[in-house]
This record gives sequence, structure tokens and C-alpha cells, in this order.
Amino acid sequence: MKPIIAINYKAYYPYSFGEHARLIAQESKRIWRETGIEIILIPPYTELKTILGIVKDTDIKVYAQHADPIEPGAHTGYVPLEELKEAGVHGVLINHSEHRMKLADINWLINRARKLGLKTLVCADVPETGAAVAILKPDIVAVEPPELIGTGIPVSKAKPEVITNSVNLIRKVNPEVTILTGAGISKGEDVYAAIKLGTHGVLVASAIVKSSKPYEIIKDMALNAMKAME
Amino acid sequence: MKPIIAINYKAYYPYSFGEHARLIAQESKRIWRETGIEIILIPPYTELKTILGIVKDTDIKVYAQHADPIEPGAHTGYVPLEELKEAGVHGVLINHSEHRMKLADINWLINRARKLGLKTLVCADVPETGAAVAILKPDIVAVEPPELIGTGIPVSKAKPEVITNSVNLIRKVNPEVTILTGAGISKGEDVYAAIKLGTHGVLVASAIVKSSKPYEIIKDMALNAMKAME
Amino acid sequence: MKPIIAINYKAYYPYSFGEHARLIAQESKRIWRETGIEIILIPPYTELKTILGIVKDTDIKVYAQHADPIEPGAHTGYVPLEELKEAGVHGVLINHSEHRMKLADINWLINRARKLGLKTLVCADVPETGAAVAILKPDIVAVEPPELIGTGIPVSKAKPEVITNSVNLIRKVNPEVTILTGAGISKGEDVYAAIKLGTHGVLVASAIVKSSKPYEIIKDMALNAMKAME
Amino acid sequence: MKPIIAINYKAYYPYSFGEHARLIAQESKRIWRETGIEIILIPPYTELKTILGIVKDTDIKVYAQHADPIEPGAHTGYVPLEELKEAGVHGVLINHSEHRMKLADINWLINRARKLGLKTLVCADVPETGAAVAILKPDIVAVEPPELIGTGIPVSKAKPEVITNSVNLIRKVNPEVTILTGAGISKGEDVYAAIKLGTHGVLVASAIVKSSKPYEIIKDMALNAMKAME
Repeated sequence: MKPIIAINYKAYYPYSFGEHARLIAQESKRIWRETGIEIILIPPYTELKTILGIVKDTDIKVYAQHADPIEPGAHTGYVPLEELKEAGVHGVLINHSEHRMKLADINWLINRARKLGLKTLVCADVPETGAAVAILKPDIVAVEPPELIGTGIPVSKAKPEVITNSVNLIRKVNPEVTILTGAGISKGEDVYAAIKLGTHGVLVASAIVKSSKPYEIIKDMALNAMKAME
Repeated sequence: MKPIIAINYKAYYPYSFGEHARLIAQESKRIWRETGIEIILIPPYTELKTILGIVKDTDIKVYAQHADPIEPGAHTGYVPLEELKEAGVHGVLINHSEHRMKLADINWLINRARKLGLKTLVCADVPETGAAVAILKPDIVAVEPPELIGTGIPVSKAKPEVITNSVNLIRKVNPEVTILTGAGISKGEDVYAAIKLGTHGVLVASAIVKSSKPYEIIKDMALNAMKAME
Repeated sequence: MKPIIAINYKAYYPYSFGEHARLIAQESKRIWRETGIEIILIPPYTELKTILGIVKDTDIKVYAQHADPIEPGAHTGYVPLEELKEAGVHGVLINHSEHRMKLADINWLINRARKLGLKTLVCADVPETGAAVAILKPDIVAVEPPELIGTGIPVSKAKPEVITNSVNLIRKVNPEVTILTGAGISKGEDVYAAIKLGTHGVLVASAIVKSSKPYEIIKDMALNAMKAME
Repeated sequence: MKPIIAINYKAYYPYSFGEHARLIAQESKRIWRETGIEIILIPPYTELKTILGIVKDTDIKVYAQHADPIEPGAHTGYVPLEELKEAGVHGVLINHSEHRMKLADINWLINRARKLGLKTLVCADVPETGAAVAILKPDIVAVEPPELIGTGIPVSKAKPEVITNSVNLIRKVNPEVTILTGAGISKGEDVYAAIKLGTHGVLVASAIVKSSKPYEIIKDMALNAMKAME
């Protein structure tokens, strides 16, 4: 299995939008060509189609940052999974620490996404909720201690036991789900450590998105990830 | 002043997305050319850029269906006004009956949108809340009794006093704001009545969006609106 | 182990408040004396102390219907667990289908309640979310298909597989948690069936709370529950 | 008209609950007897009945900190106005900065409370939203800049223009509503200034609730309020 780098664009201004949003996608494409690593781009809603256009003819996947737990219909300013499907995205991020969801809604979205052929990447804050989520059979679980998100202090160094406990608890209830970790990941060595601790890769945001040289950072992470998986 | 037809795409599947979403924009363009009426298109987030592309070089405005009351930054799956501005939209719908907002947030968004050069169309459910919203100085207030939304029973017939009371109450506190009405509007004659009762036009959704012939309906509404304004 | 009847008062007017609220507690006391069954009363916030006063010197437990996932402090109109503890309650209902919570908050509340010596009864809508919740180690899990709540069609008859699946899935991840079921439970025979399908008892609301003769109904349920547990 | 001191207990531990909650009510009673000032106590839900018992046979009013915009019925852990009415309270605080509400819900609660004979004290963050709220005809409007709440920096000193602008804007749309102010109020002189700037009194929380000598503080505020109203 190939290691995964999932890039959450968030809503940084101006980085997550327009020109810089496209740059991140173009550099990701270059790095995918150079390394073959699996990359998931998670841009804002309004950029989804543009980013999809840039990465078509590659294996790079594009996910939305959220979906609302609703069927299509008379809803104003909410995003059903069908809107994402129609836009052409491959999957959806669910329950990020900045967008926590109700348990019943997480389950509803995972099931409906599966029927629509959309992948689900579900976040959790601690190993226990990571395992709770894994029972619901998403494609990917990402465990991220919220107190480290955006700090630059990598979970793989500050709380390696969060990663190992997550892997242990999740594996007991779901042997197949892909496991990511995140929070504070900013360098290739953090990615290396995360994979060595038993995950398939990382969920990263500011370190890549707010960088003026995303190529360097993603490339460093990709090379370390490939090395760790050998 | 020209009458206004604001079209809320909502999230109907498949009507609000893809090909049909583009059709509505193209037909709106045609009708704008034929009548000069003011049209506001309010598509889903993922369609904003596509629709903007279709109506560029016209006076048609494109608004988003909602914005979240946040500054740009570490947010996942929320939409700050800056994202909309970056996408090129002209304004934003706020506090639709399907997306009610906190009073303090409505005020925050109106003020921030003004600074960013974005227009605000704020909905209210009854004349009193319409007046409350008008005090906050949005560009447009739309009063829509939620119990009539999507029914096909036009507010202008079922509850004309809602419209006249709204106009009276709103004018007392804000002589300049543009006033729309909506709910159950499905024909040209409903638009005619709404304008004769003192508004500048209507906010419409399903009657146009779910129609297989949006041209006919929008054109009928546009002609009646122009006639009522004479 | 003794069977459990948990009575959710909800917010029926006037049944859940005042005189009728006290009557339910008094009749519960009588039935506890006659049968020794375990009863959990779950009244509205404003009635908690009154109900606690009625059932003191019995083994009847009093739970709150909800707690907000906050530490005590500058909060207005929210209920931290410490408020409940101070009021003298024994536990708290979490994530009822009428008050769904975020996964991270459910976990936070379970852990904090444990530290404060409060019991947790956590609801779930389907067997899978029941298992997800069970991983977080609450004291009690109650699985209730929301579509049957308040219908009078008992889950034990309409969807017995929901109960057996819940028991199976929950037992795999947590062999010790107490398991209840609910939704549509209105007679002793429904309780009998629920226990025979592997649960420890039921979560009931309208059938008891809105009855003018709560004694008869609770007694019928208690006798059937005792018989099923033999 | 008598000046008003409204005391929001919030959810401070242990101050807002149990013994200290009762002490605040008892001292308020003493001060009411000594000065005749109008006092509104706003304790947590679970303390409402106890506090009402303490202040019966006085003119002190007891309000709840919040009500949910729902009719009574199948709701779990939500508080309809009818529950408050049944408990015997006189009114309800709505839209505190720590519990902001949707505009439509504020309006719904004000109207329903009026029908039930409950008073409404509605908060707002700035003069404009204060005026918006005043249009909806609550009994009392309290304008509190959230950035000063809990700071001990009194709005009457730091932002006197917030108070005078509020009074001006509110009076234009509603000549009868009672106007309070709050945020950072901690001494008698702050209350004196607030009244001299055109309000009827103050909404206070931590300065009184977390004090070990609430009598001294409330008395100081009451005397200054009476002096300012002369």
C-alpha cells in the first residue's frame, strides 16, 4: 500500500483560494509524478471544480472539507453529498476538529457516501473516538489531538502514544480501515515517524497551505513517507 | 429603479447542479438581454464560479446562498465572506428560512460584507423581523412567510397584508433598503401583485429551478414585473 | 442483575411538570417497594430537586435529560455536569434522538461524568452507533430506532433484529456495559420481549408519562421485566 | 420608575449553585427590604424553584437564563417556556452573548412569552442589534458589548457611547421598552453612571455572583442606582 498525504486547505486567506490554491494542486501533481505517492487534496467548496480540473489524468484524489447530513432538496446554503458527487469529487472529510459532527450524522454520511461511491475520511480527537468511528466503516480514519493542530509540534513526537493507541484500538474493531494521523505535522521526519508508528500517512494543513514553497514541503514529506513504507 | 427577480437555486437534485444549473443561468442571460430586468442568481457553492463565468458581460448578479460568520483562517468546511469575494460573487443571501442565523451574526456579516464590497440580501419570516433586519442596513430585505415557501400558494394572494405590513414597518426604520418578498411565487401575476403591494420584486426558488422550461417562467415573471413597475 | 425501567419525562405539558411529574415519582416509589425493580427517573431540569426529594430513601435513581459539554463558568442557560452533581442527581442521559450530540462531546461527557461520580446513559439510533458509543465506556447504552419513538409500535416487535444486532455488536466491544432498548414500548409484554432478546430493560417515555394511570403501566412493565429476568 | 439590578447567576462553580445561590437570594431580599430597588435574579434551571421559594412575598423577580424556542412535547433536555411558567418564574433572559439565538427564534419566544404572561429580557451586543431587538417589543432590552463581559472594565466608563447610542437608537423604534446595560459592571459607581447615561439599570454577573460578600456589592449598587434615579 502506498503512503498517503492528505492536504486540508482550510480557509486561510489568501492561501486556500485562487492562485495559491491552484499552485498547491500543481505542485502536488508534479510530486505525484515524481514519487507516485497517494495525495488527497481537500480544498474549499468554491475551488473544488478548479482543483479537480488541474489534477485530472492523475491519481490525485480531491475531497470536500465537509458535507451536511441532508438529502438534496429545499435547503439553502447547505451541501448534500449529491452536490459533491455532481461536482466530481472523490470523497469527503467528515468530523474535522473544526467541524465536529453528531455521531448519528457521521454514521448517516458514511453510509450515504458509500452508496454514492464517495470515499470518507473521518477525523477523531482521541484513540477512543477513533475506534468508535472505525466501527462505522469509513474508508479512512484520521486521529488528531486538537490541542496540537496548527502548533507545529508534531503528534508523532509530542504524543506518539496517541498514534500507537489509536492503531491498536482501531485495529481491534476494524482491521481494514486506512489510518492517518495529524496535528502539528510540518516536516518529512514527522511523516516518517507517523508511518513508523503504524499509520498509512498524515493529514496536514497550515505547514503546506501557508507555505510560499509548497513543493519543497510536500516533496520532503512524500520522500520520507515512501522511505518509511519500504 | 428596475424590478428584481432573485433566483435561489437551493439544493434540488439534479436541478440545482450541473447542466440544469447552467441552463437557468443561460436563460436568465437571454431574458436580461430581452427585458433589462435585474436578475440575481443564487447557486450552490460548487457552482458559483461556473455560473459567474456564464453571466459575465451582463448585469446579472451572482450571490452565494450563505456565508459563515467567521474570519478566514483555520476553519474546515465553513465559508467566510472572503472565499466568496475571491470567487468573484457580488453578494450573499443571509438568514434564509432554511438557514436561520443568530441576530449578532447577521449584523456581523452585513458589516463585514459592506467592507468587502459584497451586497447582502437578508431574509426574514414576518414583518417585525423584516424591520429588525432593516435596521442593520443590508442592501436588500426579503420577507417570506416560511409556511408558504414551496407551496405554490403565493404570499401576494394568501397573505397580502404580510407584504404591506412589511413595507410599512421596514420603511419606518430604513427608507432606502430594497424590499423583496417571496414564498409560493410561481407565476408572473404573483410577481405583478408583489410589486404592486410595494416591493421591488421577488425571491423565487422551486417554481423556476425545478421547471424543465425555466425560460418561460422567468420571462413571464420579468414581463409582469416590468409592467408592474411602469 | 435486576431489570431496569428508565422513564424519560421529556417535556409534555402538563404531564412532565408539577403535580403529574410528582405522581409518576410517587407511583415509581410504590412499585419499587412492591417489586424491587430498578427504576431510573429522568425529569426536566426544573423538577430534578423535587423528584429527588420524593425518591430519597429508595434505590430509585434520578438522571437529567441532558448535560452540556462545558466546564462550569461564564455560561448562561447551559447546564454543566457540576450543576447536576450539585443538585444531587445520580446520572445523565446523553445523546437522546431528540438531542443528538457530537461524538467528541459524548466522549467528553462520559469521561467527566465518571470523574464526578455520575452515571451515563447514552442513546444511539442503530446497532452500529450503539457499538460506537459502547467503546467509550458509558454505564448504560440504549439503542432506539428514532422512527419508532412515540409510535406505540414496539421495537421488540417491529424490529427485533435491531435489538439482537445491538446486543451482538455492543458485546463484542464492551462485555460489561448495561444495554437498554426503547422506542414504541408501551406494555409489559414489550418489556418482556426486549429483555428476552438480550437487553437489561427499557427506556420509556410517552406511554408512562402521558398516562393518567402511570401506576398500572409501570407495574405491568415491572412484573413482566422481573418475569423475563428469572 | 425604580432602577433595576438584574443578577445573572451564570454557571460558576460552586457560586451559582446550592448554598451560595441561596445566599445571593437572601441578601437580595434584605436589600430589597432596605431600599425597595427592583431586583431580578436569574439562577440556573435546577435552582429556580429554590430561589423562587426564598423570594416569595417580595417584589423580587426570578427569570430563567434561557428558554428553547419549542412548544412543549416530545423534547429531551430542552426547556420550553411552559416549563418555566409551571415552575413559577416571572420571566426569561433571551439571547445572552453566551447563548446567542436566531432572530426568528427571539421573535417567537418574545411573542409566546407574552401570551404566557412571562416577561422577556433580551440581550444585544451593539446599539444596532439592541434597536433590532426593541422592534420585537420585549419588556427589557440589555445592551452588553461582549468584549467587556467579565473584565471588570465597566461599559459605562470604557464605552459610554455604546450606552448613549443604544438609548438613542432604541428610543426611536420603541419609546416604552425598559433599557439596561451591562458588561464589566462591578461597583456602585458603574451603576450610577449607567443610569445617568439614560438606562434603567444594569445586568450584572461575576462581580456579585463570585463575591464572598454579595450583600456589600448589591447594596452599594442599589444605593447608587437609587441616587442616580432621583
